[in-house]
Amino acid sequence: MSVSSQGPSGIPVPVRWTDDGSAVHLLDQTLLPGDERYLRLETVRDVGEAISALRVRGAPAIGIAAAMGLSVGARRRLEAGGEALGRSELLKGIRDDARALAATRPTAVNLAWALDRLLAVAEAHSDAAPETLVEALAAEATAIAEEDREMCRRIGLHGVGVIPEEGCGVLTHCNAGALATGGRGTALAPVYEAHKRGIPIRLFADETRPLLQGARLTAWEARRAGVDVTVVTDSMASVLMKAGKVNLVIVGADRVAANGDVANKIGTYGVAVLARHHGIPFYVALPRSTFDLAVPDGERIPIEERDRAEVAGAADRAVVPDDVPVWNPAFDVTPAHMVTAFITDVGILRPPFGPAIRQALERSVETAHRNPTPSEAAP
Amino acid sequence: MSVSSQGPSGIPVPVRWTDDGSAVHLLDQTLLPGDERYLRLETVRDVGEAISALRVRGAPAIGIAAAMGLSVGARRRLEAGGEALGRSELLKGIRDDARALAATRPTAVNLAWALDRLLAVAEAHSDAAPETLVEALAAEATAIAEEDREMCRRIGLHGVGVIPEEGCGVLTHCNAGALATGGRGTALAPVYEAHKRGIPIRLFADETRPLLQGARLTAWEARRAGVDVTVVTDSMASVLMKAGKVNLVIVGADRVAANGDVANKIGTYGVAVLARHHGIPFYVALPRSTFDLAVPDGERIPIEERDRAEVAGAADRAVVPDDVPVWNPAFDVTPAHMVTAFITDVGILRPPFGPAIRQALERSVETAHRNPTPSEAAP
Repeated sequence: MSVSSQGPSGIPVPVRWTDDGSAVHLLDQTLLPGDERYLRLETVRDVGEAISALRVRGAPAIGIAAAMGLSVGARRRLEAGGEALGRSELLKGIRDDARALAATRPTAVNLAWALDRLLAVAEAHSDAAPETLVEALAAEATAIAEEDREMCRRIGLHGVGVIPEEGCGVLTHCNAGALATGGRGTALAPVYEAHKRGIPIRLFADETRPLLQGARLTAWEARRAGVDVTVVTDSMASVLMKAGKVNLVIVGADRVAANGDVANKIGTYGVAVLARHHGIPFYVALPRSTFDLAVPDGERIPIEERDRAEVAGAADRAVVPDDVPVWNPAFDVTPAHMVTAFITDVGILRPPFGPAIRQALERSVETAHRNPTPSEAAP
Repeated sequence: MSVSSQGPSGIPVPVRWTDDGSAVHLLDQTLLPGDERYLRLETVRDVGEAISALRVRGAPAIGIAAAMGLSVGARRRLEAGGEALGRSELLKGIRDDARALAATRPTAVNLAWALDRLLAVAEAHSDAAPETLVEALAAEATAIAEEDREMCRRIGLHGVGVIPEEGCGVLTHCNAGALATGGRGTALAPVYEAHKRGIPIRLFADETRPLLQGARLTAWEARRAGVDVTVVTDSMASVLMKAGKVNLVIVGADRVAANGDVANKIGTYGVAVLARHHGIPFYVALPRSTFDLAVPDGERIPIEERDRAEVAGAADRAVVPDDVPVWNPAFDVTPAHMVTAFITDVGILRPPFGPAIRQALERSVETAHRNPTPSEAAP
């Protein structure tokens, strides 16, 4: 019931079981990079607060935290209820806990997906002994974490194929690294794999306004992993490219439409335009679960507009006059034609993306397991 | 000896004489937008501190502050020395003051230029009565401020010609507005002129990391002038353009080479690339004094790299890990071929820029005074 605490060399895993398996061990990312503090979360309420307060972020990491949180909550109910706890009462309590956890970040797809997986396990064990049900939930949460770790590993194995063996400069935007997942990340997985193989990488991290995930999180974890990383403001990416310091761009994705249009952190589209202008390949790394065939193109992806305070207030000081509006979309859409290739857990997908994405989603995980070599899905 | 305090309707002038003409009245821009506080600077030391602490910034405004500061210092020496003050002693004191002021921002071209103008006046009056010399210095400082105001007015008159009469969306980067000059600014002068004529403008201000001059200063002064202004992070400019909200870009310039390559605030080059990609005109507004024929192209313009703390520390909190490097160039170079036109005090300059710039510099100010209609220098 324990998940390995091994991330990429030197990087802590943001969410895992505590050593005794009875609680969630969570790195409080709101305190990074200044303070590396771990929380021991023993209740559903604790885990819910950590998710809504962004102490854990990144869709896969949120899903893992929620799954472990639901499992911890079921164990608490079992311990509190003792012999007297009925099966239906336990099941009702688990459903209540799942609803509470799901409400913490209503738009995070992995959150609902992970909770649904655990609820299905609970239903399947509704006739079993309560102890068995609780163990099954913990095992499912562990499976979600381990699958995510394996997915990241595969993205790294496939993605390292796009990095020249003599090394290069890589630009990334936001944080799609270990801190966002159960493994070594999505966009950063190929970078870590290259580093592990002794390929010299010079990583540039856009600071990623307004919430500075690049400066705070990508810089922190890449440095921990021993990768040569430099932080620049978002406005400096163009100058790095002009100076020839960036040979390729790798970013993550929040959702990719059926045609390959990419919704990701605000600023991603601008990086894609700059890469195109400078003739630099632009890669998007993601697990297959991020493709959404129900959305035909990027125009149909709703873009969350967030609070002005994220832009207008820098720490404790107002930096935008109170009477001036701020526009603060959290994501943008990069058209498929600006993407060089998708780096996925089942290989590199190249244009035309519509058929390549459909084909990748039809592949079974078993196929991927049998043949995890890079570029297998390339046409 | 007083300079009008009228800026664009509603915007305070950042540097002027106090009402009694004996001191410098200076808006402390480090406190904007939260606090609008004016300083009464009565000594050379006060003015020097204000310049080095960036309480006044923008090359023209710095030049005006230094000129007024040198004049105020000479008056103090006269008052302190009384009848006993010898001419050569006064002149030596003025030279010492000029040296001290020049050292506050060694790279600011206008600073040295303004001080040199005052020193030349001092030398020319070395045989006159000390009172006469001091009055001549004050008059020269006033002339510098008034010339700058007139220069801004002319940039506005010429620049409004590139703005469609039915109005449009304008994106600007950093602050090249009233707060940076003795008048209505350079990049913002056409916007203010359009607003004055009732042309509806929707101004978008890039926040301009790392020092946030767009969020703090451009937003503040545009709002004061009644212009519809919205702040975005630098990374959102691309999305505004894609959404069709930006019809033209106007930025200022720190130095323009003989071939038209533009050195300006970091991030300007990226905005130019994005504008080119979206087919949006990219204008650079500047007085002719910003052209530097001694520099053949942008590659020869030295780029100042500033302290990591500007990027790594947001207010009182570290946002980049201490052991991660930061790259923080203050300016970048936009190649001439990406500039649609230069908006100058003597008209709009269009490609080929080499001959257009040389011709503009050969035009006498008198010619400009006789014919300040828009686009007169266009081919």
